[in-house]
Amino acid sequence: MSTEPGLHLSALLARIPLVQAMQLRLHAWDSGQLVMTAPLGPNVNDKGCAFGGSLASVMTLAGWGLVELAMHARGLDADIFVGESTVRYLQPVWDDFKAVATLDEGATWEAFFDDWARHAHARAQVLVTVPGPGDKPAATLQARFVAKRRKA
Amino acid sequence: MSTEPGLHLSALLARIPLVQAMQLRLHAWDSGQLVMTAPLGPNVNDKGCAFGGSLASVMTLAGWGLVELAMHARGLDADIFVGESTVRYLQPVWDDFKAVATLDEGATWEAFFDDWARHAHARAQVLVTVPGPGDKPAATLQARFVAKRRKA
Repeated sequence: MSTEPGLHLSALLARIPLVQAMQLRLHAWDSGQLVMTAPLGPNVNDKGCAFGGSLASVMTLAGWGLVELAMHARGLDADIFVGESTVRYLQPVWDDFKAVATLDEGATWEAFFDDWARHAHARAQVLVTVPGPGDKPAATLQARFVAKRRKA
Repeated sequence: MSTEPGLHLSALLARIPLVQAMQLRLHAWDSGQLVMTAPLGPNVNDKGCAFGGSLASVMTLAGWGLVELAMHARGLDADIFVGESTVRYLQPVWDDFKAVATLDEGATWEAFFDDWARHAHARAQVLVTVPGPGDKPAATLQARFVAKRRKA
């Protein structure tokens, strides 16, 4: 993991109280994927497995972080919002978990940065997966993130 | 709001640490809808408006609570899981917020409880809205909840 982007993202995350409550950590990042981790303890539900809201939050933050760092790596500064997202909860999660974010099938950074250069506005379709036991994911999120010029 | 169902739900919510961190409150419930509220402070993001993960969590919990209390009101006990959900983030939320859960268009409690009676397994399609300024929602969630026989 490149340290400086990690510090940039961690500084942003530190401003979100729920991130502290979830004990979310940036685990790894390169231009292709971003991985965040969270312990089960603070993210448990009434049934003893991971709370759906925590899974959705961690996956949303991993997707947001992927876009945030891709822009930061190119020296670009933007407000990045989640627009629409679909979460599939496929298996209960009984342990600490991680969320792995990549661009979704068919999306490219070339198209994203081309839009940004033309319009100072761009959309990225992101896929985030929480791996489960074996090869099957425990949860997935597909989301559209929108980068907008930062308000002064 | 009927007090006893409120206590039942509050006892379940108290077992979810993130609910405490979000300062989520059950505001009102009847057989048709359930309303939860949350203050902006603990749910803010790096931009000063409501964190998408908090909005998704509060909406998911409101939908889950609606199904939980509908079953509880009939003396039924089940584990209720969220299966798949789609969130639309339509406007930033700059203040304390509420989430209003109802059955989604076309879904009925009659069909839900008929399935439960036959199979001890049933699905409810739920719509949750966070009202925004004016008549437009700030965010919506459409989700499928699954009730399963509780594990011993």
